[in-house]
Amino acid sequence: MSSIFTKIINGEIPCYKIFEDEYTFAFLDINPIQLGHTLVIPKIEVDYFIDVPEPYYSAVFKTAKIVSKAIHEATGCNRVGSIIAGFDVPHFHYHLIPMNDMSDLSFKKAQGRDKDEMLEMQEKIKSFLS
Amino acid sequence: MSSIFTKIINGEIPCYKIFEDEYTFAFLDINPIQLGHTLVIPKIEVDYFIDVPEPYYSAVFKTAKIVSKAIHEATGCNRVGSIIAGFDVPHFHYHLIPMNDMSDLSFKKAQGRDKDEMLEMQEKIKSFLS
Repeated sequence: MSSIFTKIINGEIPCYKIFEDEYTFAFLDINPIQLGHTLVIPKIEVDYFIDVPEPYYSAVFKTAKIVSKAIHEATGCNRVGSIIAGFDVPHFHYHLIPMNDMSDLSFKKAQGRDKDEMLEMQEKIKSFLS
Repeated sequence: MSSIFTKIINGEIPCYKIFEDEYTFAFLDINPIQLGHTLVIPKIEVDYFIDVPEPYYSAVFKTAKIVSKAIHEATGCNRVGSIIAGFDVPHFHYHLIPMNDMSDLSFKKAQGRDKDEMLEMQEKIKSFLS
């Protein structure tokens, strides 16, 4: 069965899409630590990052750099931070989190947001990609 | 003035070195969250990951994959997790953290260890690299 992230890539489940290329896909985390929190995933369903083959593996981090610059501009955060945890969805995902201080590296702060806020942030980040 | 990490790369400050190639350097974090916690850094002194040029940027993540496999084997952890924070030493560093559960993604658990424990873990991780 496809992971929820494969369904997102295939458009079977809606998302706030930020970026896509041949090997990667990026979209807003539905329960952001801070508004603008984005997931970058490879277009291949592999659970653990150490098992993700090239060119997918390196492509995730190249996409992360491009998207992080846009998140930084769009949110005005101090730093974009990142986390790989891997205890939930079994499809490697790289968290990009707009941080103002170290307390923003905690999933305890994750919470759903209004659809309008999410849509506004999606458009703002995308505007800094182009 | 050189960052503390540049001094480590240059051998001016000792470290528990794990791996080195043309563009990257990896060594045990002196205050590990869990024993085996390793930092991967580029051999170029750039603070923010979005500013790290190629080939250094991608090389950090390639090294991280190689070293993470060895950390996984050496520690027997559930997953190796990773963090980029960026609020301390102004030289990009990628944390690789042997995790047993989500609570291991917190710097509140970071603490110094005995030299013997560190040396033993250094050798164990290195043994899984070869």
